[in-house]
Amino acid sequence: MDFKLQYSDTKSNARAGEITTGRGKIQTPIFMPVGTVGSVKGVHFKELEEDIKAQIILGNTYHLYLRPGLEIIEKAGGLHKFNGWEKPILTDSGGFQVFSLSKTRKLTEEGAIFSSHIDGSKHLFTPENVVDIQRTIGADIMMAFDECAPGDADYNYTRKSMDMTHRWLKRGLSRFDSTNAKYGVEQTFFPIVQGAGHKELRKESANFIAECQREGNAIGGLAVGEPPEVMYEMIDIVNNILPKDKPRYLMGVGTPENILEAISLGVDMFDCVMPTRNGRNGMLFTSEGIINMRNEKWKDDFSPIDPAGISFVDTRYTKAYLRHLYIAKEMLAAEIGSQHNLAFYLWLVNNARKHIIEGDFTSWKEKTLKKITTRL
Amino acid sequence: MDFKLQYSDTKSNARAGEITTGRGKIQTPIFMPVGTVGSVKGVHFKELEEDIKAQIILGNTYHLYLRPGLEIIEKAGGLHKFNGWEKPILTDSGGFQVFSLSKTRKLTEEGAIFSSHIDGSKHLFTPENVVDIQRTIGADIMMAFDECAPGDADYNYTRKSMDMTHRWLKRGLSRFDSTNAKYGVEQTFFPIVQGAGHKELRKESANFIAECQREGNAIGGLAVGEPPEVMYEMIDIVNNILPKDKPRYLMGVGTPENILEAISLGVDMFDCVMPTRNGRNGMLFTSEGIINMRNEKWKDDFSPIDPAGISFVDTRYTKAYLRHLYIAKEMLAAEIGSQHNLAFYLWLVNNARKHIIEGDFTSWKEKTLKKITTRL
Repeated sequence: MDFKLQYSDTKSNARAGEITTGRGKIQTPIFMPVGTVGSVKGVHFKELEEDIKAQIILGNTYHLYLRPGLEIIEKAGGLHKFNGWEKPILTDSGGFQVFSLSKTRKLTEEGAIFSSHIDGSKHLFTPENVVDIQRTIGADIMMAFDECAPGDADYNYTRKSMDMTHRWLKRGLSRFDSTNAKYGVEQTFFPIVQGAGHKELRKESANFIAECQREGNAIGGLAVGEPPEVMYEMIDIVNNILPKDKPRYLMGVGTPENILEAISLGVDMFDCVMPTRNGRNGMLFTSEGIINMRNEKWKDDFSPIDPAGISFVDTRYTKAYLRHLYIAKEMLAAEIGSQHNLAFYLWLVNNARKHIIEGDFTSWKEKTLKKITTRL
Repeated sequence: MDFKLQYSDTKSNARAGEITTGRGKIQTPIFMPVGTVGSVKGVHFKELEEDIKAQIILGNTYHLYLRPGLEIIEKAGGLHKFNGWEKPILTDSGGFQVFSLSKTRKLTEEGAIFSSHIDGSKHLFTPENVVDIQRTIGADIMMAFDECAPGDADYNYTRKSMDMTHRWLKRGLSRFDSTNAKYGVEQTFFPIVQGAGHKELRKESANFIAECQREGNAIGGLAVGEPPEVMYEMIDIVNNILPKDKPRYLMGVGTPENILEAISLGVDMFDCVMPTRNGRNGMLFTSEGIINMRNEKWKDDFSPIDPAGISFVDTRYTKAYLRHLYIAKEMLAAEIGSQHNLAFYLWLVNNARKHIIEGDFTSWKEKTLKKITTRL
């Protein structure tokens, strides 16, 4: 994997760059739609490519490992062959899901023993086997196995957790470096900065991760309950330490506002379930502001969902019609909402990139934020 | 509305024709996807037009009347403006839903008083107001308000029910003939043959309907529990009476097999929820046979869903991947299944038409039925 830093904003730490993977190039900053079990919920891959214009998607190691399972994925020739998506895929390490989804889990130095949320069966994730699993999935970008401490974790808990995450990282790196890409396409491995809301720990973790000298670095354990100011402060601290010539991936973040702020702090890659989850629930992010599509006020508003026409759904359907579909609990509502929101997120990062290149990112950001954070 | 009978098969009663409506032409025999509340479940209109190639869709008067309601539809300028579908729409009369969905209803000579399945509110459908409602929806083809007797209804019940349906028909026709199209696009009105499984009543009803001399005629009250042989016998009896120069619409039917048999008996138009309902449940009709996509045998079958490639989803996704999506309860599974099945139904009637024109319909039908009714 290669990263070219193409433009650096002079009034902020925002950057525009290009990642080259074995499966093509990615223009940054970029948002990665989440394809939990190998499918971006409610959206055809054709739409992801042609309408939403996604350049890379995410897969969840925890989910894919449990279902369809590695045997099927390996037999298919990797996740790309299994789901038909030919562009890059990033997989998380499963750490976050082990802690958020599994009803029972036990953390030891060796790894995490957890029970499947599907059938209760017991499994063990270790820093090593999580590398093996991601190799088998065929991820273009793999993530280190980590413990994600809660947003309000105290200093002692966070230090212990972070130290173990660092030891796990060393073990993961060693497994990664001693194994090969599985399907003839290069794979890379990102370490993850932890440290919850503690500045000194974030600094220590960022230094530890920077020293690993990997092709890209991730910031984990944010947007997990802490106030946004704390999140921005932590990102700023970490990005002042992480190497400038490598892409920085802020995991699981966030709202359109979070994303623009984090871009201005030097983040290059994002993923979040928010566009699809909110899309299913009727909460739409549009170029004019935030819309609760179930609100009665839209019942006879026959204007397009979003006049900006980012996705074909924006002008094809009206607000009144889409509201009707949500109220009538029609599947198509969730499909339209998900597709629109994803297209909006990609439009947002593409525009951020454009304005970084044009040199007016900060003023564009301020103007845009005022609009898109308004509740309509 | 105009109907041109273009080809008549010599070895069966199958016909190919062309219906001209105020919103374009329809090649028959045709299948009409069901858009219950103004949306074909799980499928974008863009896909209906470009991939499935639907020429006309159905809307349900009962559902649309309750939600979004006539005020909104009228304000939008009719259902076409509301949902953005520009081709013809046929609406049923709501009779079937009043009897199947409403928990309480009372039938009188005047009409049917029923309670909404949504909020329990009381409503009255009469032969007259059902015409008014369909005018307001802006249906290109409207249906008479009828009582649909159960498939096993006895002679006395069926006679009483049919006689009332005929009296209702006269009232509906009189309302239709004394009112005008609402949005400047012509609307037509189809009467419905009833009579359950009783030959003499079917004959009587078909004669009654034929005498109405309308632009098209429908056969109702079939595929409601009676054996298929009874259904075919009734269709045959009725079609020998209904005028040859008008399209014949068999309501709510059915399986691919039912459709091919009914085409050979001279039916021109079909609708059924089966392709979308089965699509949501994982039952796929393919050019090679019927697939229960949830079956474990597909878990590592990486061949395309349907090698015939009727819809883009057929070759874009594999059986193994689609099975995984159903098992993981991913929305995309229902979307793919619905889209495939609808495309298959349209492919089926288009092929029937082609072979009627080419003169080998019956041999093609026999060969095709053997294949497509096989359980894979």
